[in-house]
Amino acid sequence: MNPTIAVFANSPDRGRGLARDMAVRWALAECGRDYDVRQLAFAELKLPDHKARQPFGQIPAYEADGLTLFESGAIVLHIAESHGALLPADAAARARAIAWMFAAVSTVEPVILERESARLLEGDRPWTAQRLPGIDARIQDRLADLAGWLSGRDWLEGDFTAGDLMMICVLRRLAGSGLLATQPVISEYVARGEARPGFITAFAAQRALFVG
Amino acid sequence: MNPTIAVFANSPDRGRGLARDMAVRWALAECGRDYDVRQLAFAELKLPDHKARQPFGQIPAYEADGLTLFESGAIVLHIAESHGALLPADAAARARAIAWMFAAVSTVEPVILERESARLLEGDRPWTAQRLPGIDARIQDRLADLAGWLSGRDWLEGDFTAGDLMMICVLRRLAGSGLLATQPVISEYVARGEARPGFITAFAAQRALFVG
Repeated sequence: MNPTIAVFANSPDRGRGLARDMAVRWALAECGRDYDVRQLAFAELKLPDHKARQPFGQIPAYEADGLTLFESGAIVLHIAESHGALLPADAAARARAIAWMFAAVSTVEPVILERESARLLEGDRPWTAQRLPGIDARIQDRLADLAGWLSGRDWLEGDFTAGDLMMICVLRRLAGSGLLATQPVISEYVARGEARPGFITAFAAQRALFVG
Repeated sequence: MNPTIAVFANSPDRGRGLARDMAVRWALAECGRDYDVRQLAFAELKLPDHKARQPFGQIPAYEADGLTLFESGAIVLHIAESHGALLPADAAARARAIAWMFAAVSTVEPVILERESARLLEGDRPWTAQRLPGIDARIQDRLADLAGWLSGRDWLEGDFTAGDLMMICVLRRLAGSGLLATQPVISEYVARGEARPGFITAFAAQRALFVG
């Protein structure tokens, strides 16, 4: 049986691969694993049926072999462990890769989400234009630290891991902001991820929902 | 050899246990493990010496047996796995507990951080008083979903796990906001966590740095 991923029926990104199912699709593609999707309209996300799968009424959710799982980071970690892929075998190296998964969603993404909140939720408010430079400066601080680490490295720790997969998905949310281009080390890192066959396969699969 | 945790020499919370070392201290206390602390002044956080431990110049960092680790979620997960504690043995139940660890830092904490940014970084700006009700409403949405899940449960999934530990640490950042009290299911859940001997031990240890 294929696993099933719950995804947006109409993702607000219109197939740019910025929604959080992308990380799960990418992890499965890296493992050569097929999957099915359950497309949900926005109105369905907050219904009890979906909240039983995803307590916050979000996407993605993941169902396989009787297990229902949520949170893209946790799903990617589970896929990696189930397939013996995307994580080093050495315990210390594995812990470091997982540290980067948490850094992606817990240290880098929150400042990016603050930018999205400002633009999407408060875009019509008079203060937003004044706030954005400060938010962008906080994002730049994170990017500078990350660039400092990545300098001279292809991936965060040795070979490509689930940590890179999560980090690149988070960084891609800045597509169109112009911020990635200010740190060539990071834009090249993101491009390396996007060039992987697994990324290309996963991107095409989510994109296909938007091509008529 | 004891593990060493890097912590603030002068935490801005003045010993209320809201800094991110609290989760690591709590996990170690749950495992009955002693540890040493490395106290860092703010000016030391961004120096190369600490950034080699923590690439974003934050606390905590964790050093044990030649492994240096960062991100409280990753450190707690590593401690849990190393000690065979705080996670169920069953693979599916373990994956669910880890999902809640990610939910804590990736779904619940970002809206709380947005409130902290507004108050601490933009507290003197004219728009902040107008923004706070909207931010609080976003926090309330998350709390309502979480309360929906927790209703009738002592812990998120069966017994206490690393998922509860991380979630309760994140929720405690709302101490003093009045928001937790709006969801008694959640304030009672936090109180259950705070009543655990491991929490009490960890809280006293970080508090001791502030008592002259």
